[in-house]
Amino acid sequence: MATISQKILSRASGYDGMAEPGEIVEAEIDYAMSHDGTSVLAIRSFREMGSEKVWDPDRVVVPYDHIVPANNETAADLQREVRNWAREQNISHFFDCGTGVCHQVFPEQGFALPGTLLVGADSHSCTYGAFGAFGTGVGATDMAEIYSAGRLWFRVPETIGIKVEGRLAPFVSAKDIALQVIGDLGADGATYKAVEYIGPAIEGLSISGRMTLCNLGVEMGAKAAIVPPDEKTDEWLRGRARQPYTQVFSDPDSYQQQYDYDIAELEPQVAAPFRVDNVRPVSELAGLKIDQAFIGTCTNGRLEDLEAAAGILKGKKVRARTLVIPASREVLLDALKRGIIQTLVEAGAMIGPPGCGPCLGAHMGVLAEGEVCVSTSNRNFPGRMGKGGLVYLASPATVAASALQGRLAVPGVSK
Amino acid sequence: MATISQKILSRASGYDGMAEPGEIVEAEIDYAMSHDGTSVLAIRSFREMGSEKVWDPDRVVVPYDHIVPANNETAADLQREVRNWAREQNISHFFDCGTGVCHQVFPEQGFALPGTLLVGADSHSCTYGAFGAFGTGVGATDMAEIYSAGRLWFRVPETIGIKVEGRLAPFVSAKDIALQVIGDLGADGATYKAVEYIGPAIEGLSISGRMTLCNLGVEMGAKAAIVPPDEKTDEWLRGRARQPYTQVFSDPDSYQQQYDYDIAELEPQVAAPFRVDNVRPVSELAGLKIDQAFIGTCTNGRLEDLEAAAGILKGKKVRARTLVIPASREVLLDALKRGIIQTLVEAGAMIGPPGCGPCLGAHMGVLAEGEVCVSTSNRNFPGRMGKGGLVYLASPATVAASALQGRLAVPGVSK
Repeated sequence: MATISQKILSRASGYDGMAEPGEIVEAEIDYAMSHDGTSVLAIRSFREMGSEKVWDPDRVVVPYDHIVPANNETAADLQREVRNWAREQNISHFFDCGTGVCHQVFPEQGFALPGTLLVGADSHSCTYGAFGAFGTGVGATDMAEIYSAGRLWFRVPETIGIKVEGRLAPFVSAKDIALQVIGDLGADGATYKAVEYIGPAIEGLSISGRMTLCNLGVEMGAKAAIVPPDEKTDEWLRGRARQPYTQVFSDPDSYQQQYDYDIAELEPQVAAPFRVDNVRPVSELAGLKIDQAFIGTCTNGRLEDLEAAAGILKGKKVRARTLVIPASREVLLDALKRGIIQTLVEAGAMIGPPGCGPCLGAHMGVLAEGEVCVSTSNRNFPGRMGKGGLVYLASPATVAASALQGRLAVPGVSK
Repeated sequence: MATISQKILSRASGYDGMAEPGEIVEAEIDYAMSHDGTSVLAIRSFREMGSEKVWDPDRVVVPYDHIVPANNETAADLQREVRNWAREQNISHFFDCGTGVCHQVFPEQGFALPGTLLVGADSHSCTYGAFGAFGTGVGATDMAEIYSAGRLWFRVPETIGIKVEGRLAPFVSAKDIALQVIGDLGADGATYKAVEYIGPAIEGLSISGRMTLCNLGVEMGAKAAIVPPDEKTDEWLRGRARQPYTQVFSDPDSYQQQYDYDIAELEPQVAAPFRVDNVRPVSELAGLKIDQAFIGTCTNGRLEDLEAAAGILKGKKVRARTLVIPASREVLLDALKRGIIQTLVEAGAMIGPPGCGPCLGAHMGVLAEGEVCVSTSNRNFPGRMGKGGLVYLASPATVAASALQGRLAVPGVSK
């Protein structure tokens, strides 16, 4: 009786038998990711440790996303430093400004594979669980050690199962499921646990929707958030996967705990400032005046998300500053070919180059004191998108509907 | 024997007869423009002067372009301050983030009309001369006075005629003509003069090309840079012009001085750091390694410019960070409809939201110390695009060709 997490960590650590939750293992990393923001710190630690060569330049992935293109000389200097280091180290998977958000580029480029152990120097690296991998975020110093040795210790986590049944109502999506669950479990509800999302509603989700779900796992403290792989996973990975992989599944009754949801009646949800678990139905807050609407990020910047927004905005005009940032160049190109970008621009949206955009408050849509943004991103902590700004987290449909009214609005409810 | 400038300033000042060069007149402004950067200062002066109401809220035009979307809390706060002021003052022509660069939006919205007197709180307001207007930049304090009274004093300028003959070679454009002229006359070659571009080569230019020419007038010190209006002007303004207008022309022999050019042999030109008049043929500097390529701004961010770049980049991949920022939402939409944006993205370019982008070094593509950018913008002063960055000014064709090679390159010369 073992979980996906136990099986992956046991395999990766060469464990004789099956590692139990609570045990510490030292495991070999399949692929390690660091971006323009965290690579700098990791590289400096790597050098301080006296390391000279990364353990395997084909297993280090460096996408630029956090501040692209550079917002000032310091960012430009640091990006050059990392770029030069990647060249010195013969890092084969270096993705410069404009390729997209790390958590989108990493799967697109075929590194997020079922059964693999993946680490990223970014807290939302749990996104890779959407592919049946064990993906988790590590600090920059840990990443320095990984650069150097390709190994890291892990405490094998217990697993919480979240079984979801029912059919989503129109204009309700994976983001609303995730917010509902986080609202119920709380920001520390899954601390150092693995979370597995299972059940027919999850099987019904696209890979994009599963990425949204897993992406938000860390917002309830999860070490990893995983959707068991299936044919959709294989299909998505066809032509992308960088190496052969084996799908791994949890045995029956291997979870420490299980929560059951039926989302047939689920309404669009919003996480109000300043906590991701401060979740309420959008209908309760509808009418709140907004200054900015933002659609994008590793949480909700994919084709499906842009399509949902375009469906709502088509032929209409936004009444709030609206910024759409596709999660990757691939997403942008797909959206261009389908006319989605044109629809969004016609509605009055700005389109930014693939990257994190204003999510972390570094540039490209920072809020003024007291301004309100409804956003598809993943964090609404104080100062996240500008000191004194107020961020409400919601789905692309909710953000688009709100952009049209200039007020927080329930998608699908005409006014 | 009077020039366009004399005629416009005489009419606007209610002069009895014709004001001569050197005379001071106090003239009524047809339309006044200030952007997110300069409006703040102008509004503060306006308030300090004790002014309460703008002289005519239909004649004040406020486009947001310098830092869009806001790069930090301060910019967001200031943008809100101007937005609120515009609302209080019932400014009817307010264009928020994403509409485009002021000097593109102003003409698109029908304010740049033949025979009119136009001022902008931005040095490149001479762009409006492309429509046979007298357009000029003023400081923020002057703008405060204009907000208040709708009038300003002017010294009637002498006019330098620049007569251009010959047919442009392929891959050579208005930008190259402008750079050539600035290189010859020098950065102070037309100080406080009006410059009139005339002759068959100018008549042959599109409105877009004429805007590029006039835009760069201030880089040789010109108070105004003007192309005599013609049928192309009328055609471009059809459906846009905000009020009836009358085309005005210079009388024969009214110029103080005239330069004659034949551009049949003109090669692509580049202005090397750190002066706009440090102009050489691109061929002399070809091979110089570049870090960034930038296509956009009030100088060269129009459809024709993007089209020229796309023609060169189609089916190929850039070898330097490449950023394309359409000058306006209208340009972006036209480029989307023609597949130009898709071509640029496929080639590896980032597309930014309409605005000034990195031109002034405030965000979105700032250079690291020692980095080289080849740019379609208008200034290459020290620190312009980042402290220690080196900016080479060139045409969209030259920038695109250089992006492909990762080195300064002559467009149309295959390698």
